[in-house]
Amino acid sequence: MISFSVSQIAELVKGKLTGDGNRPILGAAGLLEASETDLSFFHNPKYIDDIISSKAAAILIPEKLNGELPIQNKTVIQVANPQWAFAQVLGIIEKIKRHHPQGIHPSAVISPAAKIGNRVAIGAHVVVESGTVIGDNTVVYPGCYIGEGSTVGSDCLFYSHVVLREDVHIGDRVIMHPGVVLGSDGYGFATVQGIHQKIPQIGKVVIENDVEIGANVTVDRATTGETRIGAGTKIDNLVHIAHNVHVGKGCLIVAQVGISGSTTIGNYVTLAGQVGITGHLTIGDGAIIAAQSGIMNDVKPKEVLFGSPGRPIKEAMKLQALYGKLPDLYDAFKAMKKKILPPTKE
Amino acid sequence: MISFSVSQIAELVKGKLTGDGNRPILGAAGLLEASETDLSFFHNPKYIDDIISSKAAAILIPEKLNGELPIQNKTVIQVANPQWAFAQVLGIIEKIKRHHPQGIHPSAVISPAAKIGNRVAIGAHVVVESGTVIGDNTVVYPGCYIGEGSTVGSDCLFYSHVVLREDVHIGDRVIMHPGVVLGSDGYGFATVQGIHQKIPQIGKVVIENDVEIGANVTVDRATTGETRIGAGTKIDNLVHIAHNVHVGKGCLIVAQVGISGSTTIGNYVTLAGQVGITGHLTIGDGAIIAAQSGIMNDVKPKEVLFGSPGRPIKEAMKLQALYGKLPDLYDAFKAMKKKILPPTKE
Amino acid sequence: MISFSVSQIAELVKGKLTGDGNRPILGAAGLLEASETDLSFFHNPKYIDDIISSKAAAILIPEKLNGELPIQNKTVIQVANPQWAFAQVLGIIEKIKRHHPQGIHPSAVISPAAKIGNRVAIGAHVVVESGTVIGDNTVVYPGCYIGEGSTVGSDCLFYSHVVLREDVHIGDRVIMHPGVVLGSDGYGFATVQGIHQKIPQIGKVVIENDVEIGANVTVDRATTGETRIGAGTKIDNLVHIAHNVHVGKGCLIVAQVGISGSTTIGNYVTLAGQVGITGHLTIGDGAIIAAQSGIMNDVKPKEVLFGSPGRPIKEAMKLQALYGKLPDLYDAFKAMKKKILPPTKE
Repeated sequence: MISFSVSQIAELVKGKLTGDGNRPILGAAGLLEASETDLSFFHNPKYIDDIISSKAAAILIPEKLNGELPIQNKTVIQVANPQWAFAQVLGIIEKIKRHHPQGIHPSAVISPAAKIGNRVAIGAHVVVESGTVIGDNTVVYPGCYIGEGSTVGSDCLFYSHVVLREDVHIGDRVIMHPGVVLGSDGYGFATVQGIHQKIPQIGKVVIENDVEIGANVTVDRATTGETRIGAGTKIDNLVHIAHNVHVGKGCLIVAQVGISGSTTIGNYVTLAGQVGITGHLTIGDGAIIAAQSGIMNDVKPKEVLFGSPGRPIKEAMKLQALYGKLPDLYDAFKAMKKKILPPTKE
Repeated sequence: MISFSVSQIAELVKGKLTGDGNRPILGAAGLLEASETDLSFFHNPKYIDDIISSKAAAILIPEKLNGELPIQNKTVIQVANPQWAFAQVLGIIEKIKRHHPQGIHPSAVISPAAKIGNRVAIGAHVVVESGTVIGDNTVVYPGCYIGEGSTVGSDCLFYSHVVLREDVHIGDRVIMHPGVVLGSDGYGFATVQGIHQKIPQIGKVVIENDVEIGANVTVDRATTGETRIGAGTKIDNLVHIAHNVHVGKGCLIVAQVGISGSTTIGNYVTLAGQVGITGHLTIGDGAIIAAQSGIMNDVKPKEVLFGSPGRPIKEAMKLQALYGKLPDLYDAFKAMKKKILPPTKE
Repeated sequence: MISFSVSQIAELVKGKLTGDGNRPILGAAGLLEASETDLSFFHNPKYIDDIISSKAAAILIPEKLNGELPIQNKTVIQVANPQWAFAQVLGIIEKIKRHHPQGIHPSAVISPAAKIGNRVAIGAHVVVESGTVIGDNTVVYPGCYIGEGSTVGSDCLFYSHVVLREDVHIGDRVIMHPGVVLGSDGYGFATVQGIHQKIPQIGKVVIENDVEIGANVTVDRATTGETRIGAGTKIDNLVHIAHNVHVGKGCLIVAQVGISGSTTIGNYVTLAGQVGITGHLTIGDGAIIAAQSGIMNDVKPKEVLFGSPGRPIKEAMKLQALYGKLPDLYDAFKAMKKKILPPTKE
């Protein structure tokens, strides 16, 4: 059970406290859900009115305020980044609440030729094939499969039912959610006399440090060479990444995105939900692709695109507005035509 | 082996029989696939001509007919809802044909601190962690994982490889198809000096009574508080539901839909296939969103939207029709311009 | 370790060698990734300049060249289909590198009423229920589940965590990637007095010979009758195929496609990534649907469609171009209006 005073929390996040520092904090919640013993935070201007209704013991707010906040009679803690301060407190609660598996479960099937680090946890019914390496402190939940010659770094966390096929290589501090599949064959066929002949996929998958991959994501192995996800990239659920794709560092890839084969994604690219990107493209550093867009051409660094096919977002928004006015245009056009052209009999 | 007479089936579904009640019913099938010993049903006007060609022993048809049906020389059973009557017969066949696992398989790894109800079945290689509760008559197929402190109601049916992480709470009569993941971390990061820092996700997932969830669906746990799916909601395959989403009662969420974080879906909402909904929105009761639409704004109750971005369906259909006529408009416009403006030299 | 000479490779693929036949080939790679001991190939005109930079020991190129290739000083092997020749060499490397499971693992739970063929491999923690049949030489990786009465042909390859529910029937030489779910219930409900009553799904799934199915794909069982995937069809990751869909032979179904219930897909149809197809449609032989398209009407054989809703691709491309010019049209229209109509006061 977590129990801090508001003052202790303020100290912990190095914030400036205004109000009652003695109230106990037993949990954390959103502004409206918070009870009188919860810490909360204000971050999204959409929810400014929720500050008034909030019962939270204390609210984390930004140091620099855009206009006034309705914080009369509220206990607040001012910090540089309230979301991040809140995250740090959540991290403390999480550590207290969560119990990851410990030790090696006797039902796990581990090849004697696997090299297992110190303090590694391997859950029930896990299979670890030969030639594998698992780094120190890594936790593998029940039901995972780690294929021949695959390597996993230190301090990784694999939830249940993660599948790494052979020759998949994972860095340190990587988090994998349940049902992730890494190293499935790329989708490659040579059509010979009407038969789709399989092109064997003998390449690998490389996941760099500090990557997080959401539930039921699939990342295919390369035909030859590698499919690679750069350090610090975060991938949401049900994303598909095809063979020989290279994703840069610090990218955000939101749920249900699909990236086709041999495409290169730069650093700090954001792909919003359900975006599709065709193969053999280059997406520049810092580009942002809005939700459901379809990208069929290279994208320059920092471009912001929307639509299918994707266009610069300002243009896309203008086109959408004009599209919505098409009935007016047709009507006005007809009226004008009437004025100009004398009515005909046909 | 099922074996009824047509009369017995008519009695069972409380229908009005016309024709030969003595023929045996050994199975059930669609109009065209039915053999002479199958029951069939008519429901979709698209298939009216299939009644003529059908060899079915008997056909369930509606009490209230819109126009004539070609049922001369056919054995028919009139009921209020032929689809539902057919479903009831399928239910009887299913009970005869299907054998769910029974008892606790010795290879299952069940914490002594789990509380298992009466007549619960737990298949091979299942893992049930400590602090869990499983209600009476619930069936858990092989390879499932039920995380710490999660609770499952009575009469639930979990097919193979369902993963419930910790602190996931399931009502009664819930059906989960293979590969469902409940309680994966929500996709939340605070970007601090260019690093996407993880916001720990310490909330839970709550699934109310009579929900059904399709294969490989993912439902993320809340950051704090809960992600909730309301009673009687039915979710198709490969759907993604993000953290802190609240889905109401009796919703239909078709395959590959994605719902972003903190969005609230009302009761009896229909989201057709591949719809995407952005975060922090409210979708009103009874709204219908057509396939592949992208919703970026709140939706009023009973609104019917289509398109990306979504518009009222009548408007969207009209715009699509005008869009298709753009070439004509451009041509007519050019012709008119010629008439009005004298040709210039450039 | 693979080791051939360039001449040996040329012989193997029946190609015409120009250059140094004595160099050793130890691996295979794309043009730019290839080292001095790798075989490579030229296939996509987009990468013609990479021939110049390539360090490959030898490059497979087409017999019939469209224009000149920059192959001065390069060792090349001319073949009818460089991609297919490359694939054959990859197949040899794969056979040397990969070790599939062998024999029956003692932790597998296999019903005594299952009929297991010769030289079948069944990995750790697999469950095979009663009434099943597994053909000769089939390999089942750890953690798979094969439900009651399901049958699998010869020479199949199931990677980890594949789930076949009951009454699923698989042909010969079928490859299934991790997390595939076959035979989940179709999404069928009869809404009776506001309650979505389940329509039991008692049909089956049939997968014909030489099909390949990508990671985390879901194929639902039929309500009655069957859901069928035709011989030689190749399905990419995260695809959803609903109940009673019939897919023809030799189709290519790219990642994240969704096909709704009772739709029939002809032979040699291509569905590009993220395409959605509504229910009860017929898609003709050889049709091609471009990425992200939404199909709501029957499609004729060999039609090529694009867009949501889908239109013939030429029309769709023209409409997209005109759509992009809407701002010009509105401006020109305003200018013309000014000319014709005298300015009014309002």
